[in-house]
Amino acid sequence: MTQALFQEKLQVLNIGLSSFVDSITRTGGSVLQIEWAPPAEGQPEVGRTLAQLVNLLSVETANQTAFDAYQSAQPVLSGVGIAGKALPNMGERMILHGGPPIHWKNMCGPMKGAIIGAILYEGWAENLAEAEAMASSGDVAFEPCHHHNAVGPMAGIISPSMPVWMVTNTTDGNQAFCNFNEGLGKALRFGANGPDVITRLKWMGQILAPALQAGVEVLGGVDLKPMMAQALHMGDEVHNRNAAASALFLKRLISALLKTRTPSADVAAAVDFIAGNDHFFLNLSMAACKAMLDAAHGVPGSSMVTAMARNGVEFGIRVSGTGNTWFTAPAPIVHGLFFPGYTTADAAPDLGDSAITETAGVGGFAMAASPAIVKFVGGTPQDAIDNTNTMTHITVGRNNAFTLPALNFAGSPAGIDIRKVVDTGIQPIINTGIAHREAGIGQIGAGITRAPLACFTQAVSALAHSIDDGQ
Amino acid sequence: MTQALFQEKLQVLNIGLSSFVDSITRTGGSVLQIEWAPPAEGQPEVGRTLAQLVNLLSVETANQTAFDAYQSAQPVLSGVGIAGKALPNMGERMILHGGPPIHWKNMCGPMKGAIIGAILYEGWAENLAEAEAMASSGDVAFEPCHHHNAVGPMAGIISPSMPVWMVTNTTDGNQAFCNFNEGLGKALRFGANGPDVITRLKWMGQILAPALQAGVEVLGGVDLKPMMAQALHMGDEVHNRNAAASALFLKRLISALLKTRTPSADVAAAVDFIAGNDHFFLNLSMAACKAMLDAAHGVPGSSMVTAMARNGVEFGIRVSGTGNTWFTAPAPIVHGLFFPGYTTADAAPDLGDSAITETAGVGGFAMAASPAIVKFVGGTPQDAIDNTNTMTHITVGRNNAFTLPALNFAGSPAGIDIRKVVDTGIQPIINTGIAHREAGIGQIGAGITRAPLACFTQAVSALAHSIDDGQ
Repeated sequence: MTQALFQEKLQVLNIGLSSFVDSITRTGGSVLQIEWAPPAEGQPEVGRTLAQLVNLLSVETANQTAFDAYQSAQPVLSGVGIAGKALPNMGERMILHGGPPIHWKNMCGPMKGAIIGAILYEGWAENLAEAEAMASSGDVAFEPCHHHNAVGPMAGIISPSMPVWMVTNTTDGNQAFCNFNEGLGKALRFGANGPDVITRLKWMGQILAPALQAGVEVLGGVDLKPMMAQALHMGDEVHNRNAAASALFLKRLISALLKTRTPSADVAAAVDFIAGNDHFFLNLSMAACKAMLDAAHGVPGSSMVTAMARNGVEFGIRVSGTGNTWFTAPAPIVHGLFFPGYTTADAAPDLGDSAITETAGVGGFAMAASPAIVKFVGGTPQDAIDNTNTMTHITVGRNNAFTLPALNFAGSPAGIDIRKVVDTGIQPIINTGIAHREAGIGQIGAGITRAPLACFTQAVSALAHSIDDGQ
Repeated sequence: MTQALFQEKLQVLNIGLSSFVDSITRTGGSVLQIEWAPPAEGQPEVGRTLAQLVNLLSVETANQTAFDAYQSAQPVLSGVGIAGKALPNMGERMILHGGPPIHWKNMCGPMKGAIIGAILYEGWAENLAEAEAMASSGDVAFEPCHHHNAVGPMAGIISPSMPVWMVTNTTDGNQAFCNFNEGLGKALRFGANGPDVITRLKWMGQILAPALQAGVEVLGGVDLKPMMAQALHMGDEVHNRNAAASALFLKRLISALLKTRTPSADVAAAVDFIAGNDHFFLNLSMAACKAMLDAAHGVPGSSMVTAMARNGVEFGIRVSGTGNTWFTAPAPIVHGLFFPGYTTADAAPDLGDSAITETAGVGGFAMAASPAIVKFVGGTPQDAIDNTNTMTHITVGRNNAFTLPALNFAGSPAGIDIRKVVDTGIQPIINTGIAHREAGIGQIGAGITRAPLACFTQAVSALAHSIDDGQ
């Protein structure tokens, strides 16, 4: 029997380190490589903490509570506000930014560029040099959007006089906010701050915002969840692809706009602006996701992630059961497709609050709905399906409101469980735009990145401490 | 060796008639069933004709010419016209209908209902009884839409004062026409003819048509092929699902509409009407398909189908190389999903010119693009992918302008080859609406049907004769 075994052609299963494979294939053996990595990044202490958390019924119960709150949330676009008045605790000389907290001196190029643009937009300075001096002087407070119930894509800059979408979770009453989308290319959120950028921001504040507010009033609010669900059936993942959602939103809005007293030239300009920007809905999607996840935040013992956000230097996550602490690690680079003339060397690291969409089970987690997105972020349609399927290993459940046709209408995997991420080593996938690393240039591509494991290992330890403290 | 064979467990491949399988499985054998049917429906004479056609280089060359003309066609929405003036050879007391020619007395219920409605709309009669009397009197000429470069969904009724989309193939200059879509439910095309139906038709002629004409003029025409291609990336197959295409069209149209002198109340009404009908684009898709296929028609020796159309009694096809002859067979019933309270017993047989979309490689042929359509026509998303893949066995090529994300952006199978249909027995698949069999009721469901083989066997014989005659 043993002899027979040695006469057979070598067939090997290799688990983990793939370097063993080479020597076997060189001698003519065939190897099936199984991906595996030790849990908790191989850190024994985190592994022990994890083992403790994995078996706690209280964590399961807390996660179910958090997930139910997320899933039963009904985000409704309730109006358009001005950031200084609408956002809680917004200071007069305060500028909000994407990602976890960061000091001016440490900020990446596009965030600095966007802040300078916002200072010019507010009229606090006359020119770029003055604006930069003011930003570095300490006269302007910088805080994360997330600290004010808000989110912003890329640099995520929100200054007091900027208009914001106001989204209300009608199930629980919590509100979330997001700025308006300016379109692609040279835009403030990618660090551009030239006169055309500022002029467009002013038009958005003075003409677009009142028109949209009037339209939303006529509509009596817009249910965003069914619109997102419909867009998932139309090839969007409502993060980096919003072509359908933007068209559906415009379709809803336009007949209302025509019933307002908005001058017809302004209606026409607003329609042209929205119709010309397939990403227009992104900021509504983000506010809706923020509203759904804030409902799930603050459940003691819950290991469900309620925010993932990047400031271009650090990647940070917040977890339902660990309060407002950010668990951070260096922001990763983004692999993707670059506009002609640019490469990875030109790219700022991962940036912006838009990963709130993946946190809410859409974006990269719902890529199976969006085969066409691979033309924008790279890969094949099968990769898109595989990415969604992989995410089911690290999530609390499936959002049955967000069904995926290509997976026979299964719900999108949602509610990232930090325990499962640390246990499997599977990093949450994120579809994202890519900004130039220098201020003032703008978007140079789009692609896929993954949340750093280190954020999740820290969070596991913190959650275990919080549970120990609570007992 | 022989003995060893008989000691092994029975493993059988069964080709063709599946009734052999049962006896083997009963005795514990395992069988892999291979679908197969004799070519040419088992008719030896057709089989011989087919064998002759399959090896003719001239047919291949002719098909390539026809396919190239189809593929290089650029259908552009060039304007809105009035049928009586716009359509070639339209008579004053003429009503066009879907499918191949048919006499009034033989028409199905919904077609009769729609014709009665059209007579009322034209004001040729005062009431239903008068209208029916006029229809049966011979005072009104009935001809297929296809005989006037036009198409119409379901009953396909076009009367002289109805507005029509005018689509020009800018590559070859040929024009195609289609009526406007009225929306779902009680609509003329499903045989409904009540006062609300007539009132809506009048509004469409008097208010909607001039508004749309003005909008299209401002736009200077609308390229329909890129819009259809984009919709295929957004979950439409542009036959029974036009949610994305309708939204994209409205998005293009609305800013133009606002630049016309159309009264704002009329703009608002037009926008509401279009925004409220996810099938609005269907009639544009049909006219675009007709324009592309007419470019491929009339190539001597070509076995490529240039029209499939049904009148609710007969299913008819036209082939590029056989002129304007219709090859007909009884219209099949439609398997699908019925609105509550209705069953197959209530359904009219397959009806309308909308199978022009399948003829042009979209609709059922592009179902892989539209997993969500299975909620409307039945089946699973995998069925949708399988349907598209199966159609590649009976088509001349792939339309590289219509790429399918779920098939890694392969082009949609297009250009049905009557030889391949007869050889394989694979019947072209068609997504379609289902009308009630009685006049005046309307749509009762949607589903999938297949073109009858008999149309294709007749066409094969006719094509062979035409080639013999030509030599």
